[in-house]
Amino acid sequence: MKYLGCAYYPEYWGADRFETDAKLMQAAGINIARVGEFAWSRMEPKEGEYTLDWLHQCIETLARYGINVLMCTPTATPPEWLTSKHPETCLVRADGVRAVHGARRHYCTTNQTYRRFSATITDVLTKDLARHRNIVAWQLDNEFGPELSWCFCPDCQARFQAWLRERYGTVEELNRRWGTGFWSKDYTDWSQVTLSNDLSSYSSRTLDSKRFWSAMMIEFAEKQSDIIRRNTPHVMVTTNGMGPIYSHIDYYKLFAYLDVACDDLYFDIGTMDANVCAMNIFRSIKPGKRFWVTETGSGALDHNKPPHPLQFRAWAWSSLAHGAEAHMIFRWRTCLSGQEQELQGILEHSGQPRQRYKAVQNCFLELRKHWENLQDLPPPDAPVAIVQDYDTLWGYEASRIGSSVKYTGLVYDVHKALWRRNIVCDLIPTDRALNPYRLVILPSTMMISQEFAERLNLFVRNGGTVLAIGQIGMRDDSDNYLPYPGPDHLQELLGIRIEGGMYLKSHVEADEALWEPAPKSRDIEVGITGVLGAKKVHGSAGTWVADVSLNGASFLMRFTDGAYAEQPAVVSRQTGGGNAIYVASTRLDTALFGEVLDHALSQARIQHGIATPENVEAIRRANVVFLVNHTQSSASIPMDTPREVMVGAYRAGMADLGPYGVCVLRY
Amino acid sequence: MKYLGCAYYPEYWGADRFETDAKLMQAAGINIARVGEFAWSRMEPKEGEYTLDWLHQCIETLARYGINVLMCTPTATPPEWLTSKHPETCLVRADGVRAVHGARRHYCTTNQTYRRFSATITDVLTKDLARHRNIVAWQLDNEFGPELSWCFCPDCQARFQAWLRERYGTVEELNRRWGTGFWSKDYTDWSQVTLSNDLSSYSSRTLDSKRFWSAMMIEFAEKQSDIIRRNTPHVMVTTNGMGPIYSHIDYYKLFAYLDVACDDLYFDIGTMDANVCAMNIFRSIKPGKRFWVTETGSGALDHNKPPHPLQFRAWAWSSLAHGAEAHMIFRWRTCLSGQEQELQGILEHSGQPRQRYKAVQNCFLELRKHWENLQDLPPPDAPVAIVQDYDTLWGYEASRIGSSVKYTGLVYDVHKALWRRNIVCDLIPTDRALNPYRLVILPSTMMISQEFAERLNLFVRNGGTVLAIGQIGMRDDSDNYLPYPGPDHLQELLGIRIEGGMYLKSHVEADEALWEPAPKSRDIEVGITGVLGAKKVHGSAGTWVADVSLNGASFLMRFTDGAYAEQPAVVSRQTGGGNAIYVASTRLDTALFGEVLDHALSQARIQHGIATPENVEAIRRANVVFLVNHTQSSASIPMDTPREVMVGAYRAGMADLGPYGVCVLRY
Amino acid sequence: MKYLGCAYYPEYWGADRFETDAKLMQAAGINIARVGEFAWSRMEPKEGEYTLDWLHQCIETLARYGINVLMCTPTATPPEWLTSKHPETCLVRADGVRAVHGARRHYCTTNQTYRRFSATITDVLTKDLARHRNIVAWQLDNEFGPELSWCFCPDCQARFQAWLRERYGTVEELNRRWGTGFWSKDYTDWSQVTLSNDLSSYSSRTLDSKRFWSAMMIEFAEKQSDIIRRNTPHVMVTTNGMGPIYSHIDYYKLFAYLDVACDDLYFDIGTMDANVCAMNIFRSIKPGKRFWVTETGSGALDHNKPPHPLQFRAWAWSSLAHGAEAHMIFRWRTCLSGQEQELQGILEHSGQPRQRYKAVQNCFLELRKHWENLQDLPPPDAPVAIVQDYDTLWGYEASRIGSSVKYTGLVYDVHKALWRRNIVCDLIPTDRALNPYRLVILPSTMMISQEFAERLNLFVRNGGTVLAIGQIGMRDDSDNYLPYPGPDHLQELLGIRIEGGMYLKSHVEADEALWEPAPKSRDIEVGITGVLGAKKVHGSAGTWVADVSLNGASFLMRFTDGAYAEQPAVVSRQTGGGNAIYVASTRLDTALFGEVLDHALSQARIQHGIATPENVEAIRRANVVFLVNHTQSSASIPMDTPREVMVGAYRAGMADLGPYGVCVLRY
Repeated sequence: MKYLGCAYYPEYWGADRFETDAKLMQAAGINIARVGEFAWSRMEPKEGEYTLDWLHQCIETLARYGINVLMCTPTATPPEWLTSKHPETCLVRADGVRAVHGARRHYCTTNQTYRRFSATITDVLTKDLARHRNIVAWQLDNEFGPELSWCFCPDCQARFQAWLRERYGTVEELNRRWGTGFWSKDYTDWSQVTLSNDLSSYSSRTLDSKRFWSAMMIEFAEKQSDIIRRNTPHVMVTTNGMGPIYSHIDYYKLFAYLDVACDDLYFDIGTMDANVCAMNIFRSIKPGKRFWVTETGSGALDHNKPPHPLQFRAWAWSSLAHGAEAHMIFRWRTCLSGQEQELQGILEHSGQPRQRYKAVQNCFLELRKHWENLQDLPPPDAPVAIVQDYDTLWGYEASRIGSSVKYTGLVYDVHKALWRRNIVCDLIPTDRALNPYRLVILPSTMMISQEFAERLNLFVRNGGTVLAIGQIGMRDDSDNYLPYPGPDHLQELLGIRIEGGMYLKSHVEADEALWEPAPKSRDIEVGITGVLGAKKVHGSAGTWVADVSLNGASFLMRFTDGAYAEQPAVVSRQTGGGNAIYVASTRLDTALFGEVLDHALSQARIQHGIATPENVEAIRRANVVFLVNHTQSSASIPMDTPREVMVGAYRAGMADLGPYGVCVLRY
Repeated sequence: MKYLGCAYYPEYWGADRFETDAKLMQAAGINIARVGEFAWSRMEPKEGEYTLDWLHQCIETLARYGINVLMCTPTATPPEWLTSKHPETCLVRADGVRAVHGARRHYCTTNQTYRRFSATITDVLTKDLARHRNIVAWQLDNEFGPELSWCFCPDCQARFQAWLRERYGTVEELNRRWGTGFWSKDYTDWSQVTLSNDLSSYSSRTLDSKRFWSAMMIEFAEKQSDIIRRNTPHVMVTTNGMGPIYSHIDYYKLFAYLDVACDDLYFDIGTMDANVCAMNIFRSIKPGKRFWVTETGSGALDHNKPPHPLQFRAWAWSSLAHGAEAHMIFRWRTCLSGQEQELQGILEHSGQPRQRYKAVQNCFLELRKHWENLQDLPPPDAPVAIVQDYDTLWGYEASRIGSSVKYTGLVYDVHKALWRRNIVCDLIPTDRALNPYRLVILPSTMMISQEFAERLNLFVRNGGTVLAIGQIGMRDDSDNYLPYPGPDHLQELLGIRIEGGMYLKSHVEADEALWEPAPKSRDIEVGITGVLGAKKVHGSAGTWVADVSLNGASFLMRFTDGAYAEQPAVVSRQTGGGNAIYVASTRLDTALFGEVLDHALSQARIQHGIATPENVEAIRRANVVFLVNHTQSSASIPMDTPREVMVGAYRAGMADLGPYGVCVLRY
Repeated sequence: MKYLGCAYYPEYWGADRFETDAKLMQAAGINIARVGEFAWSRMEPKEGEYTLDWLHQCIETLARYGINVLMCTPTATPPEWLTSKHPETCLVRADGVRAVHGARRHYCTTNQTYRRFSATITDVLTKDLARHRNIVAWQLDNEFGPELSWCFCPDCQARFQAWLRERYGTVEELNRRWGTGFWSKDYTDWSQVTLSNDLSSYSSRTLDSKRFWSAMMIEFAEKQSDIIRRNTPHVMVTTNGMGPIYSHIDYYKLFAYLDVACDDLYFDIGTMDANVCAMNIFRSIKPGKRFWVTETGSGALDHNKPPHPLQFRAWAWSSLAHGAEAHMIFRWRTCLSGQEQELQGILEHSGQPRQRYKAVQNCFLELRKHWENLQDLPPPDAPVAIVQDYDTLWGYEASRIGSSVKYTGLVYDVHKALWRRNIVCDLIPTDRALNPYRLVILPSTMMISQEFAERLNLFVRNGGTVLAIGQIGMRDDSDNYLPYPGPDHLQELLGIRIEGGMYLKSHVEADEALWEPAPKSRDIEVGITGVLGAKKVHGSAGTWVADVSLNGASFLMRFTDGAYAEQPAVVSRQTGGGNAIYVASTRLDTALFGEVLDHALSQARIQHGIATPENVEAIRRANVVFLVNHTQSSASIPMDTPREVMVGAYRAGMADLGPYGVCVLRY
């Protein structure tokens, strides 16, 4: 890969170690170090007094060993002198208690004082460090988001009211849009409208609060990046994201302003399909660009499960295969003190290289050896797009039904089914161009704007296939239900009316209490049967089913029992050269969903990728195929004879993968 | 039934829907709508500015379709302008945090400002609406009680101190009655005495706090009803209660001031025996009067388990059979927005009638058809009374033993045993006349006043039977134990002394820790054997057993093991023409309790009702028998040939009930 | 035993009961009563007005019946008039909320106002009661510790800053010692440094907070005892401790200032080995002195599991055998009211003696009968010391690894293995003389000072054996890891370098998520094999293993699998006449640990005690052997023929113990 690296804390270890560390890094194949994101108190120990000599010395030492720097603004951890002089810069939790110094991300990014201090340190740093040519990018802050809590401080409340005024004009319009007529909730003055982040209030209010906080964080990021670009216009600006789907900030909007999408992707936190989903998301965030993995672990997080040393290598190859350009370990050396005292770095507490150093070194030297031959590969080709809509996500979070319908889970399920078929997909927002794709999947996209509906229409008319699943277009953009049947703006394209729906729970029994002592809410399933293509197919639906009446669509499958027995379960309607399929349930059983997906893929003329066992993946990019085994068992994959076996073992028509094995074949 | 209806929110749906809705209601058999309980902000959008035209129009539209109105005071949801101008009207939680606007019941009913606003809106509304003849009753507020929390605001604290001064006269007397000598708790000034609602304090203080809050809520209700009666003296006044046993307010006192007892009885929340218990309680609250079911569901609560459509009908017939005069659905149409966005109304979000509308319509039209022939039936005859004492209930809640001895559970168990025998019972407070009954049951009534003891004495002397169970008369009216053996005032009637008692837990073992890591407290049982009537009976006791010495009673059964082996377990003493039976345990196994109950019933010359399978009930009222099957299985009940089969199937000596089936036979 | 007694509350029961109670006590064999620890409001009902007549009368009545008094300062429960006039005396929780009156231990012992009131009442009481000769000791306060919470009030914060200034001199030095360089935590002013008691902050800060709170509580105790000693120099001063290991206060320091170590040892709360550990600890706290059991239960705690009546006797004999001089029941009579209304005393609520009175009476009269012949026995001989280090304990509590490595659990496991062998041990702090012992065990002693290391060295050179287990000397005294390999100061004695270590968790799998929905962190074990003495031994290690390189030690056992396969697992090094053994894991399986322990015992020439079944103990003191059966099963122990069977049954070479049986044999 272009960049192999680690997070490095020169402010913690002191100048005595710079030479030793840089040398050890170089020997391990490291060519980039992330520096400075928590170092504010050592950069500016007192207000306006800057001590940056150590930083210059460190960056220069790294340069001598051929190591680039991802330099950070240090605003994720304001120094004590700042927060003790300006306590109003600390965030206020929902219960009204102000956060105190002692951790990180305890500040309010909306607060004007904090923004002023943030601008000054960013300006000073970027000017002062501008001369170092090995600084290849700037990272803003660290892992933006509500690590402690979103903020409810007076500044945020006032700004929220201004933001709402901007959006709605009058309190009366806000009342109308939020539907405040139940429980006497009408507002008569902007000052009455405050932030909310739970289920006890109107979902409209919570949804708008989430939109507001996301917008504020993005505004903070944009202001920092403006300063950096003014001072060092040639250097990339980015920040490190999280997740597969990070639910707190609209990353499509955040990274639109930045130069590269970065993910702190700890492969051991999620399942492998979630890790791949993360990579597909970050590759989708900035189309046509490569993403960076800015943090991943080389050892156990805290004192939790450690990765297998070979697994670390499998993850790195997967990262490269999915289009990453950087792969960076958190962190160089385990800290002796502090909140993350147990989170293992590459070196031991003692500073000695032991087992983890060797595992990283082996992996990085191998990756560097092959990079020259792989760096010009085009990104993986994605014929499918899954729509991932932040309004829908926040709408579910703001509503009680979010505990039944797990929106991100639905997205992950769809993604996983594609990954099992080794089909690459993008995950896109509703305002993204649809023409690069042959199949667009809407997993319970609750809010459908007219504009988006029109583009979906055009997409189908032009030959595209749409697969719409579950609660499609059932709420307005304030998270309220429609006073008419759904799906909003899509009744014609899908050829149906959604009259209502039902959550699939067993009926109440005479001898069971619903709420006492414990809710015995038993989930049920209802049967589905019908014909897809020429194939008779059976299966079941769970969680929720729609009360659908036909409005032009063809009946492919029907419910066999339950309240909607004999009603449509899967329907399809052709428009122009394309086709739209609707599934009247948020969740089908895995096999049935596979059949429906295969039907849609076949409509869209998309073929499966290379067949592999579960958790073994095959990624084809131009004439190179990457096979990565994420399991402890060996696997043999039938493959045509390649021109070159770049990595791993190929023999008699088979690529042989040991536990966590990797095979790269050039055709 | 006389009234079949639903809750309707004209302020939410707007005048455009009044005609459509009224017409659909009429077609569904609805003849009453509850209106206005959450509409304050639309009745009085600014302080002193009233907009009631929409309300007049709605009530008149309903009148045109033959629909009556249960009109409500809107004080359950004060408008934003009120609470933002007068934040002191919002309640204060135990942790000192004041509730904010955003839900309902967030106000303090003790607060004088709130009482003033409450009086004004009640006065304005009742005067303004007085001319509408279809308003048949007024509902005060909505579901009185501590929905968010009881209030600990300075007003409540001051009023509590005044209430205590009224009750005890001096701080010294309070110290004496509360027993403040342990842990240095003596008060020296009224200002030190504050409200408490948990187990960390003296149980006396918590008990008096509960009494106080109940009294304040009742006072608030009485003040509203005084205004209504002054303005519209011909209209009934009520409020909607909850529960089978609602533990927060003394309903016997609350409804004593009102005209009809109403229960929001969601049949799907409780087991069927709890639902029947609720109906028996609300029928008992105002003896000789019929009760109302003011809220029940037609669909799923939130997105929980839905009732079976036939089950909805079974519940309605049960309601009628037990003496309800009104049966009202919550709510007409599912709201699009707000806190209860998912709670299903009769109509869909879209306003369309679909499955739930049809189920309600079928049921209501059938009920209306038969009402003429059933309306003059006398209420069910109840030969048994179970004493339900709020002081005892609160005493258990205020004490740590409440986690072992579940007082309301004991009451429900006794009730269930009677229901299984199809014997109707009343649930009465200790100050209710006993002479209508042949058997009075005291389920662990911890506090026995001298006055009540005397009436029990008289009841037995006059031929009645008393069945006293468990912790009878063991505490004084401040929830403190007696400094002498119990049962207080009943040693003679029951012929025993309760010297102490023991909770039935296994002994501590050498290799188990009591508190770490988790208490391995294992419940044990002790054997009981003896003779009831002429029958040898065995069984077991659980939870708690009494250390009893005889004081004139006859020994019916004894413990066979445990600390009190060979001591009395069940005793009996005759006084005058009657009999008192004491059970020296709070909980017998179900079979043994059945034997003891049958013995007491036989002493009281009370026969079982019609024999039915579990959860199939038979209620006889004069010459009509109602059979209702609350199970999914069919049931056939042997019955004499009736004069008329009003509802359901009768054939060859058998009433045949399908799943959730109903049969009404006239003799 | 010298003192058999109970807690007595004359202020609660009133003078009417003094005579009755004293008579009943005497008849039960009671010769000491603890009085006054919660009686402040009855001693000083108003500020400066003292009413102590009742107390004189009570003490005199007790004297007449031959009953001594353990008199208490009443500062555990300040009266209402004090806290309502001086709310600043109430403690402040971590969330900033000040405790309110209503329970106990709700005050701040650092607060100067509270200290002033505490000094005054102590002075008044001790002067006024000085004339009573039956007061044999004073108890300070009651169960010192953070019962509600440690205090975060402004007084505590200011005092903490002063305490830190004393310790570190400058903020810069504090920054250096705490290692504040990560996450920008550098302090620039003392006022910024506040108390912490959780895992969200630097572990150094939490460790120093724990040290500070312990020191403040001890200072409070010392100030009270100074007053008592000034006024009644001839009377012992003590306080009642808790636990086996009480984690909040350094008891070695607290009791160093006092005359006797007392434990509130509820035998039913802990397992029997924990109870014995408690007795070994309290005997070790003041070497050469006998300890007191100041509280133990005669019935069920609250309404939890009750002890078996015979079990109560077994516990009392065990207490005597382990060297207790006093055994006191909590409490004389069950209170009618208050927070502990259900906690059973010897008498019933009613004041009557029933079953518990008889059990206590039987036991106490028996103990008194034998005391004369047993009182001069020397304390049990302890050839082994387990190091119990409060810095290490607090270090684990302050760190996330405390959830994996349960430090007190490790100490208990070592103790239990010794107890199973009927070998008596002391539990000692690191500054205690080592020469009385032949074996010293270090269970994961994380912090090893140079001074302690030198004494361990000398101990081994002089022929002693050291058994060091797990995380030895891996952190500095600020709870930070070392920047060089461990074990600090012991690399030579143990002959190893600890390079790092690994928590034993399974590797991450591709299809499992580490943090969502629930962490599937599966603990694993690794094999160990080798030779101890001449015996081949196998077994396994859990929790954590060390990455050890040899530095002079001999290789006894090795790991067979896992990351450190073939590396040292158990090593040994001889120095002078003695030997040091190191186990490279915090936890061995029980059998393997037994082998290692037996190897160390054999090196130290220590033999097992009398062989007994599990939870049957044998304590030898001079020529007397105590056998106590803590199980429900009978047990027969082969024993040589004694000169005298003092208690129990001996027959044909066997001591026969029934359930909970006791046998005392003189040789």
